[in-house]
Amino acid sequence: MKDFIFLGGDLRFIYAAAKLSERYDCGIFGFDKLEYPAFEILTEIRRAKNVILPLPMSRNCDYITAPYYSGKMPISDVVKAVGKGGSIYCGKACPIMNHICRDNGLTLVDYFEREELVVMNAAITAEGALEIIMREKARAIMDMSVLVMGYGRIAKVLSGHLKALGANVTVTARKFADLSWVRIAGCNAVHFDDVDDLLGGFDTIVNTVPAQVLDEGRLGRLRRDCLIVDLASKSCVASMEGVNVIWALSLPGKIAPITAGEIIADTIFNIINEKKGAGNL
Amino acid sequence: MKDFIFLGGDLRFIYAAAKLSERYDCGIFGFDKLEYPAFEILTEIRRAKNVILPLPMSRNCDYITAPYYSGKMPISDVVKAVGKGGSIYCGKACPIMNHICRDNGLTLVDYFEREELVVMNAAITAEGALEIIMREKARAIMDMSVLVMGYGRIAKVLSGHLKALGANVTVTARKFADLSWVRIAGCNAVHFDDVDDLLGGFDTIVNTVPAQVLDEGRLGRLRRDCLIVDLASKSCVASMEGVNVIWALSLPGKIAPITAGEIIADTIFNIINEKKGAGNL
Amino acid sequence: MKDFIFLGGDLRFIYAAAKLSERYDCGIFGFDKLEYPAFEILTEIRRAKNVILPLPMSRNCDYITAPYYSGKMPISDVVKAVGKGGSIYCGKACPIMNHICRDNGLTLVDYFEREELVVMNAAITAEGALEIIMREKARAIMDMSVLVMGYGRIAKVLSGHLKALGANVTVTARKFADLSWVRIAGCNAVHFDDVDDLLGGFDTIVNTVPAQVLDEGRLGRLRRDCLIVDLASKSCVASMEGVNVIWALSLPGKIAPITAGEIIADTIFNIINEKKGAGNL
Amino acid sequence: MKDFIFLGGDLRFIYAAAKLSERYDCGIFGFDKLEYPAFEILTEIRRAKNVILPLPMSRNCDYITAPYYSGKMPISDVVKAVGKGGSIYCGKACPIMNHICRDNGLTLVDYFEREELVVMNAAITAEGALEIIMREKARAIMDMSVLVMGYGRIAKVLSGHLKALGANVTVTARKFADLSWVRIAGCNAVHFDDVDDLLGGFDTIVNTVPAQVLDEGRLGRLRRDCLIVDLASKSCVASMEGVNVIWALSLPGKIAPITAGEIIADTIFNIINEKKGAGNL
Repeated sequence: MKDFIFLGGDLRFIYAAAKLSERYDCGIFGFDKLEYPAFEILTEIRRAKNVILPLPMSRNCDYITAPYYSGKMPISDVVKAVGKGGSIYCGKACPIMNHICRDNGLTLVDYFEREELVVMNAAITAEGALEIIMREKARAIMDMSVLVMGYGRIAKVLSGHLKALGANVTVTARKFADLSWVRIAGCNAVHFDDVDDLLGGFDTIVNTVPAQVLDEGRLGRLRRDCLIVDLASKSCVASMEGVNVIWALSLPGKIAPITAGEIIADTIFNIINEKKGAGNL
Repeated sequence: MKDFIFLGGDLRFIYAAAKLSERYDCGIFGFDKLEYPAFEILTEIRRAKNVILPLPMSRNCDYITAPYYSGKMPISDVVKAVGKGGSIYCGKACPIMNHICRDNGLTLVDYFEREELVVMNAAITAEGALEIIMREKARAIMDMSVLVMGYGRIAKVLSGHLKALGANVTVTARKFADLSWVRIAGCNAVHFDDVDDLLGGFDTIVNTVPAQVLDEGRLGRLRRDCLIVDLASKSCVASMEGVNVIWALSLPGKIAPITAGEIIADTIFNIINEKKGAGNL
Repeated sequence: MKDFIFLGGDLRFIYAAAKLSERYDCGIFGFDKLEYPAFEILTEIRRAKNVILPLPMSRNCDYITAPYYSGKMPISDVVKAVGKGGSIYCGKACPIMNHICRDNGLTLVDYFEREELVVMNAAITAEGALEIIMREKARAIMDMSVLVMGYGRIAKVLSGHLKALGANVTVTARKFADLSWVRIAGCNAVHFDDVDDLLGGFDTIVNTVPAQVLDEGRLGRLRRDCLIVDLASKSCVASMEGVNVIWALSLPGKIAPITAGEIIADTIFNIINEKKGAGNL
Repeated sequence: MKDFIFLGGDLRFIYAAAKLSERYDCGIFGFDKLEYPAFEILTEIRRAKNVILPLPMSRNCDYITAPYYSGKMPISDVVKAVGKGGSIYCGKACPIMNHICRDNGLTLVDYFEREELVVMNAAITAEGALEIIMREKARAIMDMSVLVMGYGRIAKVLSGHLKALGANVTVTARKFADLSWVRIAGCNAVHFDDVDDLLGGFDTIVNTVPAQVLDEGRLGRLRRDCLIVDLASKSCVASMEGVNVIWALSLPGKIAPITAGEIIADTIFNIINEKKGAGNL
């Protein structure tokens, strides 16, 4: 019986499985045409000590996310794959998973609730945003005027990258403590209440705030050639003719599936280590 | 009646008063021999709309901290200085301040509870720690092997500075999310459980954890010429012959009183702005 | 009579003209369908005090480079455009320009011989190389192992960018002084004589040396998924099945024509200022 | 017969000898009270295959620099120490060394002419200058306005360090290509012809230009509390009452003798390797 079976998932899962295989016996099911030397590619769901489900595990909470699989994998199939007393690791667990695990004596772990994974994903997202700006603008990052809205995980990394490449970076946020960190990072710190008058000076604006911070009034103040990259969600920027907006969601799996997959494996290593530690007590 | 009177304090208070004087009418009391053009130096306590007390406001909660004043200023004197309905701003408020303010209808503000000030103070402290390492070591920061213990505010800034100057920086912490940030910052991330075997490889160790993380067992593993800088407190490093430990506390006021004072003024500006904003509601 | 006429050129020339127009009266000829508010778009070659030719001014030294012009502009036409005693600014001057200028009493200036322009172009090229790596690799720059061959202008900037984004950067060069600079920049410095045994460890190799440093022997040592970006010329990497090589030449005009154009204008400003200074003597 | 004997020198020489001893049999003469496990401490000059003299080898070209030796070592004694066909390595060779070596069939090597050593020394000097600024100013480096005059080796490293610590860094130079590099490094680039009007805005000025760039006229424009650090020589700043000037020369041996010594050893390794390479041809 294998230690881990991966069910479904996108390219990230192949690299996650490859890394986990360095220490554990792993198999993967849900890729029709995959060849990969590091682990066994299963042609049917077999029972393993533990099962790992994708990130997100399901879009609709009926079937497991499996874009490289021609068939369908109902969530209920998962139980067939986990050995008694085993664990199910999943990303963004569907509510039904609590019932499934409780009824079958399984341990449920949502690895997307692990802060170390969320942080590393933010770092990859920041790289992706940088790549988008480079691709979309006819201007170098060096000396580009960029506004970053919000100062959460992604914004921290992205503003640092932009500054390292020579951009003139302004960050706007509401909390004064965030603005202190912005100053320490060498960027221009502007309170959100004071940003409106500056909006006409930016070549690029990156939004990381999950709220409609770029409403029509603010859009009207932008330069016509200003690029907007929205990393938060589709509702954060009002639609307006002539404004170039790139909505960039779920970047890690798209731009760097190897790293994104290895991060999933790293996180699972951490979870296992913590369990071992707890066992010693 | 002046807007603000500063009572007591060290050099920081002079620069805080100078900066606050750019927008408000300020006076200062508690410096015997001070001459400074930006504000009025009082020879007795006069009543003002608001009073600002030092950081910390008192060492013993009897007298206000006033190292440049030949007399004594009992805390109870503060009431004489604040106009009706005014505010008392202090750093690390003594418990009695709650009573004093409630009984006299005054507003109590502890500016040291403001995260933006704590963050900026951490940045100055990090600079001070860097200066100590430079001064104490006969080796350049470039290529120096440094271990930073903990990854709070000071450690974040300090590890970045050391790395920027070319040190080989390792950070040890317990939380995996902290270790993710360490990796993103380009430093070596080591879980605290795994650090012991590496201790013999460092030229310098900086502790920021307020616990005895460097006990005798760990000290015994260090190189004889290893410098320890303890930024947390005197109890964090066991005493041991031949180990060079520098305890470095309260650095901001010592190494950069101008900046430390300006940060106090900035914080008071922020508090005032928030009150105005609230008043508009 | 205008101060400057731009003849031919690609997108960079539009932005160069726009920037030069901030201080001088400029016109541009050689763009069939251009509309741009900052300067006059000419429908025929008119005489101006000075003429500015593209970078490079000509691919074959017969016709001026003019990719956005439906007609042909023989180099000899240039003389029609320059007023008596004027200057011709060009990038990579064809040999015949010396004769043309001498015979007509004109001053010849090759702005591509200006080191400040070459340096800034190198900085844009470095950004372009970074963008290529980001686009081509399924791995994030963070934690990527990259070898940069050579340590000239482009390599200096690129290795700094990669390091800032968290890559593990090794630079190989022949001169020990270059290797000192690499160490100071925080990258791994490896003498070219010692690099062969390390070649199997890199995710990406960027060549900036104009010589065949990646011959078949060295290619054979690479990992199968190693990306090679060659910034030097097409002859620097042996052709070999299964090796992913991106030849990336003339990046500034392609990836950042605005910045590349503004740099041309900046350089012309510098040349004018120096002439003024000389005039005062 | 030992491979190398070090004669005279300061603390750097002890660390140079210690590092060279990792691969060669070394001895040292010229330290009265030295105990060090890594190499033999000689009580009289003995003959070795090669001799290494200090940096600088002599202040007056009579006696070898030997601040830790109670006696005197005439330069002519060196010949007693070198075996036939050996090499004399020295820092800043006195002219007489050419004769001595030619007459005795010895090879003369001036390691201070090696660019890799000069570069690394510049990096240490930059750290020393940073330490001086930290020590002298009552203001943090963060947000400090600093002018660096010149953009040679030391200035490149120092301006990068200051910027990394959050200073607002301006660099002034004459060559436009230098100013391009300054822009790429993210600092403010100002041509030397345009700097005078800005002089009143700096908290600190660091001079690296070996000429009197800070004459009385320029000093008169400075703020009264402006700190001047002169890394070039004592004649670069006019004397003027009330101006705080720190002349900082020969910093590497003073602030980081370990690193400075290891750099000497590294350079000697490089020289030996090159000789071996040449021998193979």
